[in-house]
Amino acid sequence: MLTVEVLGIRIDEGASAPVLLLKELSTQGRVIEIWIGAVEAGAIAMAQQEAAPPRPMTHDLIVNLLKTLNMSLVTVRINEISDGIYLAELVLSDGSTVECRPSDGVALAIRTDSPILVSEAVFDRAGIFPDTDLDASKTSSESEIAAFKDFLETLKPEDF
Amino acid sequence: MLTVEVLGIRIDEGASAPVLLLKELSTQGRVIEIWIGAVEAGAIAMAQQEAAPPRPMTHDLIVNLLKTLNMSLVTVRINEISDGIYLAELVLSDGSTVECRPSDGVALAIRTDSPILVSEAVFDRAGIFPDTDLDASKTSSESEIAAFKDFLETLKPEDF
Repeated sequence: MLTVEVLGIRIDEGASAPVLLLKELSTQGRVIEIWIGAVEAGAIAMAQQEAAPPRPMTHDLIVNLLKTLNMSLVTVRINEISDGIYLAELVLSDGSTVECRPSDGVALAIRTDSPILVSEAVFDRAGIFPDTDLDASKTSSESEIAAFKDFLETLKPEDF
Repeated sequence: MLTVEVLGIRIDEGASAPVLLLKELSTQGRVIEIWIGAVEAGAIAMAQQEAAPPRPMTHDLIVNLLKTLNMSLVTVRINEISDGIYLAELVLSDGSTVECRPSDGVALAIRTDSPILVSEAVFDRAGIFPDTDLDASKTSSESEIAAFKDFLETLKPEDF
């Protein structure tokens, strides 16, 4: 398994959908792109900004639930990609695992500083090199960041 | 504490926001109205329709997490209303409690057939009699149901 960092979220302008970018920390620096829901994108962005919501949002509730049960999230694993769908799981401190969507897993991993692991098989199949496969200047450009900000503004407070 | 049933969700046309209606099961039949987020309204509506999503959505993840930990949701309690905000908690099978928003609690209660309890104090403060306090014909009218259907259609599949 390869450890990844959350590179960020970009907006697929064609599909008007958020895309989660995960980058492997090894020298190869490959990236996988995961299309996720708007709400999950918000849940990830809020955690990245360490925004403290006035009330526990759904992913905060999961973190609180685990704490109450004296359990913690050890890692989030993205094991497979099948028909374009990424299959992920939470690994808990008692060794048990629970299937989840990658977006829920990443929203929880950021809140708990848990590592996110992706199988080599997934990277071999879906990994891209952002410098060559993506228009790197566009991905990191101000217009791209502005597009994400615009997107965040379309979300209503009550979506969170 | 008074046991309630989920009467449904209506749309507050002024605020374009979903309102969760909970009705006490006693003879009084009072109702409390809780303004909730669009996503949580979807999570409640999907569970009411027993729609099986192709992948575990966030509240399904919570249910699966509890199962994996050999824990269950005993009840959801709505204890207080403070500054218009309802304060709720999950009560788990080991007796522990976790603070939550009422919308998350109800989304979980429906998925697990757990009772929802509301304190008498909340009903005394916020309870209404739908036959006299609400325009009952409007609340249950076809136009109201159509408004909720329209609202559901504004949600994108990836919101769920």
